[in-house]
Amino acid sequence: MSSRRFFSFYERASRSFHDCPSLAKLIIFTFTVSSGGLVAYSDSKAYSGINDAVPSDTGTKKKKVLVLGTGWAGTSFLKNVDSSLYDVQVISPRNYFAFTPLLPSVTCGTVEARSIVEPIRNIIRKKSGDIKYWEAECIKIDAKNKKVHCRSNQDVNSEAKEEFLVDYDYLVIAMGARANTFNTPGVEEHCHFLKEVEDAQNIRRSVIDCFERASLPTLSEEERMRNLHFVVVGGGPTGVEFAAELHDFIREDLVKLYPIIQDQVKITLLEAGDHILNMFDKRITAFAEDKFQRDGIDLKLGSMVVKVTDNTISTKERSGDISSVPYGMVVWSTGIGTRPVVMDFMRQIGQTSRRVLATDEWLRVDGCDNIYALGDCATINQRKVMEDISVIFNKADKDHSGTLTVKEFQDVIDDICERYPQVELYLKNNQMKNLVDLLKDSKGNNEKESIEVDIEGFKSSLSQVDSQMKNLPATAQVAAQQGSYLARCFNRMDECEENPEGPLRFRGMGRHRFHPFRMQSSLVPET
Amino acid sequence: MSSRRFFSFYERASRSFHDCPSLAKLIIFTFTVSSGGLVAYSDSKAYSGINDAVPSDTGTKKKKVLVLGTGWAGTSFLKNVDSSLYDVQVISPRNYFAFTPLLPSVTCGTVEARSIVEPIRNIIRKKSGDIKYWEAECIKIDAKNKKVHCRSNQDVNSEAKEEFLVDYDYLVIAMGARANTFNTPGVEEHCHFLKEVEDAQNIRRSVIDCFERASLPTLSEEERMRNLHFVVVGGGPTGVEFAAELHDFIREDLVKLYPIIQDQVKITLLEAGDHILNMFDKRITAFAEDKFQRDGIDLKLGSMVVKVTDNTISTKERSGDISSVPYGMVVWSTGIGTRPVVMDFMRQIGQTSRRVLATDEWLRVDGCDNIYALGDCATINQRKVMEDISVIFNKADKDHSGTLTVKEFQDVIDDICERYPQVELYLKNNQMKNLVDLLKDSKGNNEKESIEVDIEGFKSSLSQVDSQMKNLPATAQVAAQQGSYLARCFNRMDECEENPEGPLRFRGMGRHRFHPFRMQSSLVPET
Repeated sequence: MSSRRFFSFYERASRSFHDCPSLAKLIIFTFTVSSGGLVAYSDSKAYSGINDAVPSDTGTKKKKVLVLGTGWAGTSFLKNVDSSLYDVQVISPRNYFAFTPLLPSVTCGTVEARSIVEPIRNIIRKKSGDIKYWEAECIKIDAKNKKVHCRSNQDVNSEAKEEFLVDYDYLVIAMGARANTFNTPGVEEHCHFLKEVEDAQNIRRSVIDCFERASLPTLSEEERMRNLHFVVVGGGPTGVEFAAELHDFIREDLVKLYPIIQDQVKITLLEAGDHILNMFDKRITAFAEDKFQRDGIDLKLGSMVVKVTDNTISTKERSGDISSVPYGMVVWSTGIGTRPVVMDFMRQIGQTSRRVLATDEWLRVDGCDNIYALGDCATINQRKVMEDISVIFNKADKDHSGTLTVKEFQDVIDDICERYPQVELYLKNNQMKNLVDLLKDSKGNNEKESIEVDIEGFKSSLSQVDSQMKNLPATAQVAAQQGSYLARCFNRMDECEENPEGPLRFRGMGRHRFHPFRMQSSLVPET
Repeated sequence: MSSRRFFSFYERASRSFHDCPSLAKLIIFTFTVSSGGLVAYSDSKAYSGINDAVPSDTGTKKKKVLVLGTGWAGTSFLKNVDSSLYDVQVISPRNYFAFTPLLPSVTCGTVEARSIVEPIRNIIRKKSGDIKYWEAECIKIDAKNKKVHCRSNQDVNSEAKEEFLVDYDYLVIAMGARANTFNTPGVEEHCHFLKEVEDAQNIRRSVIDCFERASLPTLSEEERMRNLHFVVVGGGPTGVEFAAELHDFIREDLVKLYPIIQDQVKITLLEAGDHILNMFDKRITAFAEDKFQRDGIDLKLGSMVVKVTDNTISTKERSGDISSVPYGMVVWSTGIGTRPVVMDFMRQIGQTSRRVLATDEWLRVDGCDNIYALGDCATINQRKVMEDISVIFNKADKDHSGTLTVKEFQDVIDDICERYPQVELYLKNNQMKNLVDLLKDSKGNNEKESIEVDIEGFKSSLSQVDSQMKNLPATAQVAAQQGSYLARCFNRMDECEENPEGPLRFRGMGRHRFHPFRMQSSLVPET
């Protein structure tokens, strides 16, 4: 396999955007760091902190920090946490960390599975303190008793207990997500996912199996064609990258080994939406769609899979028609779903209406003490400006005059932007330098010195701000940043207790202990 | 994993024999080339040939050569056969060749599985002609109709036929052997073998699994010890190499990752015989046994496994006592057994009393036309001198005087040694230069010129010769040499039809078309 193929698709994509360097950087960046989904929407400030629910006193006996998961979030936390301050324990059914963005490359042998994994015990070994790792699955979180129920995923002998309890002072939930099948019949049984290293290895084997089957002497032409029909469901970065890798793998390597059947290979990508890569700029989508057409990859848009059997896949088209096509292999990559244990925990804590665990901006699970959630199993529930609009105004209006002067406003603008990042984003997207410009804009008044607004004017100038809020994408990048962010908060708990570094508490007194989590991305250009 | 461990055991073994370079070379050689079992017993002559049953005329239409198997023998044949002369087809359930002597190193990650395999289609691609490969298993050989029944080992769709027939003009059986369990109860279900790449990968996973299980918090001390008890059954080169690799893997790598349990690990090697490596020189055995003792590997000699359950292994000791010990993992490596399809074929052709297919010295299956067998599924049934003693004498006695002169004898000595390699071996082992010496020895007469022997004297001088015969060991080296030998015979069929290169036919007229197969080993010193 040539290393040429490595990065090839995205390189080509980025070359086509040489007139738009930031986009090109964004594409490369996404390929390199994210596991799929969206990219960063903000590039502001550096590391920040956690807030006051975490007791600062580690006491004479070290507090137990229990980390669930060894993916991007859990591993990043583990690597960065000061393990001399805490009694750290890690539980995960997977005793290694995997560099998931390279999984599509593992499917075609461009990259070896071994090259993208690192044993958790290697990571632990390099750290101080007595960190424990147990290869087990968390099957229930008991927040009331600060305990976690675990089950070894090993075939332990019948005499030994398969299940065990682990208690904690702080719980870090970083269990990730599972593939989302949307309960489509047959997907679990017949499709490959592409989330784990084993998935990639199975896909690789399966591709070769399809070619070997198609080479058998007794197959009908129809059966041969079926075996050589590869279907990718989902036009996100993972699906698109896999389709591109598979195409190159077949054209560059497999045709040499299976020369008689090269013209019968077909790759189809099914996307329920109007476009592939719809989380990116339209030009990227257009480039990819065009490239696929030139490569002969059959791209079917607006095509929703409704059923998969052992040899056919059925889709519902925009017209409402259902059609079925035979296939040799299907890779299903349509985004992420909630793990049952997380779902159960959400029910316990009353987060029933959500898809993933909701946390505040300091990654604390809403409604829980000392429980943090990060990565794909969680989402930050960003506080709305309009919910706090009166307290913000009152805090800013130092002289309680009922109106804000430019001076009063400038004193709190940094805190507002930190506490409510949607404000900063709004300013950026509207090409304005600061909140004064925002005020100016809303009032149409050019004389800065004379600006004073009352609460109604303030509300009206900020009324559109919350619509800028976006959830962070479910990417490796976000998970990794959250892990290291949370670790630094843990490491600086005592320090920040004395000298809080966070923004003003608009609803309370003083400042927040830590900066809230902010997504960092040096590759998204400043505006 | 350090590359130090690579070759380490055998390097150390050979260093201890610096005063005996040939033995040292022999050890390294065995490790490098053979898959276990014995080493070469002879180092004589170069490539030779096949005999007359193979029609020399390839005709206007190329003859079909069907190769069963992609191990050492089959791959070596495939690599060396002139595929422009024949219509070559290969059938094997394994679409790659594996460098099996490195399997013990794969079990511990010293060598990557990927590094020891080569796709058969890669090999085919480099050759001329239209070679076909089908990933399928031969399930029946129908010699009467010159057909082979095959079954795809893939989960082909129900509409397609899973089985197919392939006909041949020449059949090359190189299907290898399977692990021999001696029908010991529980072995198939609970033990790992070490014959295939998958076996090595499974063992690697299983070792780590044992350590992860042993690390679980709820295990009793007893259960922990059980999980860390690794048992190797069979003291041949594979078992010994694996035990040594495992020991180094644990001492050099795993103790760093699982520090709390390092003192509870135990490796036991069970050998039913009196010594391990009993096919080698006694000094090698002594070195290995001594090394194992120093390393703390528990070597149990005269210990025959009688039963394996999911967590205990039972042995019968020399005293007759049966004892059972708990284990975490067992690797079973006690030699090779016959594959069912080969057993079935042997029944068809009346070779019921044998363990593997018997061939003549040209690798032709006894009692079959145009069927060859080589590698671990076959053994050469060497013609005995004493069976042919009269015809040899008569052929040598050119003037039909009833006695052989030294001159007459010298004229046929090379042919005798080639046709009956046990004669040459006998001469070597007895430190004698030629058959004249042998005669001399038997007669006690020192005056060479006057030697003449009659048939009775001739018989008596050769009476011990056949006791020197040994079967070739079931090694990678023998299989590979047989493969290339047979390929060269196929390549030179026309040439050797006109100019036979083999030894005199003592039972017939003229010469044999090809030299008989002889094991080559430049590493066994000349005597």
